[in-house]
Amino acid sequence: MKIITRVDELKAACKAAKAKGSVGLVPTMGALHEGHGSLIKKCREENDTVVVSVFVNPLQFAPGEDYEEYPRDIDKDGAFCESLGADIVFHPEPEEMYPENFGFRVTPPDAMTHILCGITRPIHFTGVATVLTKLFNLVAPDKAYFGQKDVQQVAIVEAMVRDLNMDLAIVPCPIVREEDGLAKSSRNRYLNAEERKAAVVLSRSIKKAKAMVREGEKDVAALLDAVTKEIQAEPLAKIDYVEILRFPHFERDATLVEDSFIAMAVYIGSTRLIDNSFFKEDLAK
Amino acid sequence: MKIITRVDELKAACKAAKAKGSVGLVPTMGALHEGHGSLIKKCREENDTVVVSVFVNPLQFAPGEDYEEYPRDIDKDGAFCESLGADIVFHPEPEEMYPENFGFRVTPPDAMTHILCGITRPIHFTGVATVLTKLFNLVAPDKAYFGQKDVQQVAIVEAMVRDLNMDLAIVPCPIVREEDGLAKSSRNRYLNAEERKAAVVLSRSIKKAKAMVREGEKDVAALLDAVTKEIQAEPLAKIDYVEILRFPHFERDATLVEDSFIAMAVYIGSTRLIDNSFFKEDLAK
Repeated sequence: MKIITRVDELKAACKAAKAKGSVGLVPTMGALHEGHGSLIKKCREENDTVVVSVFVNPLQFAPGEDYEEYPRDIDKDGAFCESLGADIVFHPEPEEMYPENFGFRVTPPDAMTHILCGITRPIHFTGVATVLTKLFNLVAPDKAYFGQKDVQQVAIVEAMVRDLNMDLAIVPCPIVREEDGLAKSSRNRYLNAEERKAAVVLSRSIKKAKAMVREGEKDVAALLDAVTKEIQAEPLAKIDYVEILRFPHFERDATLVEDSFIAMAVYIGSTRLIDNSFFKEDLAK
Repeated sequence: MKIITRVDELKAACKAAKAKGSVGLVPTMGALHEGHGSLIKKCREENDTVVVSVFVNPLQFAPGEDYEEYPRDIDKDGAFCESLGADIVFHPEPEEMYPENFGFRVTPPDAMTHILCGITRPIHFTGVATVLTKLFNLVAPDKAYFGQKDVQQVAIVEAMVRDLNMDLAIVPCPIVREEDGLAKSSRNRYLNAEERKAAVVLSRSIKKAKAMVREGEKDVAALLDAVTKEIQAEPLAKIDYVEILRFPHFERDATLVEDSFIAMAVYIGSTRLIDNSFFKEDLAK
């Protein structure tokens, strides 16, 4: 496995790899956990060459967010990628990605960003779309792998590929969870022991909604009410948002439809966690 | 020569062409003239496959601009492309390029658009960058050809390729002029006979500035003053802007430098015309 830090070198390596077979990309910010691991494994199964990018992208953090404290450990991340059979880890410095006079942005439509995480993080998805455009252009992957935990990101990246006619397939992968249901996240390490216990309220409230749906409840207001109450009963939790929307264009329906999903952002202490789930299978029961 | 109207067909045709050799792209809005002809010829010389796009891009016109009246004649443009040896003309309907729910934008940095044509046309270059990103992704050209007449566009497209790590070379081509010096433009056909005569004031004022530079003048204010007076002496002309800036980042200098250029937009009657020139050769004399 090769760790590459320069864009020119990455481009050359990926061109050589593409001449020999398929190339898959797993874009990450590092601090890799089993969630990322599942993406890398899937990428390994489906491609001749596996590229993992490890880059804490300054463009997607607003001032006051956790850009500085975001965990960085390239030795550990590199070893993890190697253990899963990655061929290339791309780990550039910010100056390599954003040199002097850099100023272009790839901007998602307002309808996809003035909602969910976009409300408290207004520049976030423009930063994500911009860095992914760069990575897609450098790697020219056949497929790129994203965790379904970031459901808004998945919808936006799929829209970007469609709108801008990018020549790759986006592969969303299921959320990986801890034993107690907490979705794996690099930010879980910010939690102290008490907060870690409280954090299970996100997945527990989603489970409750899914159980209600399996018992016949389809009224969005009733589901949101039950979930909100469940979270509010946890003293360490503070809701940023809880929404039930339709994928991929985020319409608000009064009654569940096939593509409805629930998504939430909840502060546990000072750590902001997200979780989501689709109701398709629950509706089918 | 093949006229293609669907993005999927274009993508497939360009993939097949790329497998066999190099692909060059000449993006145009049609109403082709000898200026475009020079780009197609150069593209023909340098590539195995020549793709010309003919698409009046609604995204780069603001309400009140000439989107509706912009000249369209695909039969004439197609014949012109064929006569110059083009292999593919891409001529999509707006709905093919911008289907329902389309909303992504590729946005140039403010420093490159809050100046020159960007002041009176604030959405123009975002529209240009967005459609070019789509065309570059669909065609995957080795090279794309642009007229130096749109000097701000050339600077912005080169910055876009650099910033977003797009995998192609931008080839700027010299301005093609009428006998009397007027830069060839699809919008020249809007001029009546009297306006057509008056329109030569743009190139005449530039010639004057270049003559002054060859005689030793390097003071930007003195050059701008002379050019402004020359244009103001023409009763049918109304200046939008006259600027002397440094390529490619548009710094304003007090004294000419090697990469200084003069650029202007002037209304002749109700038709807005642009012209520009670099001073490099004049400074060398």
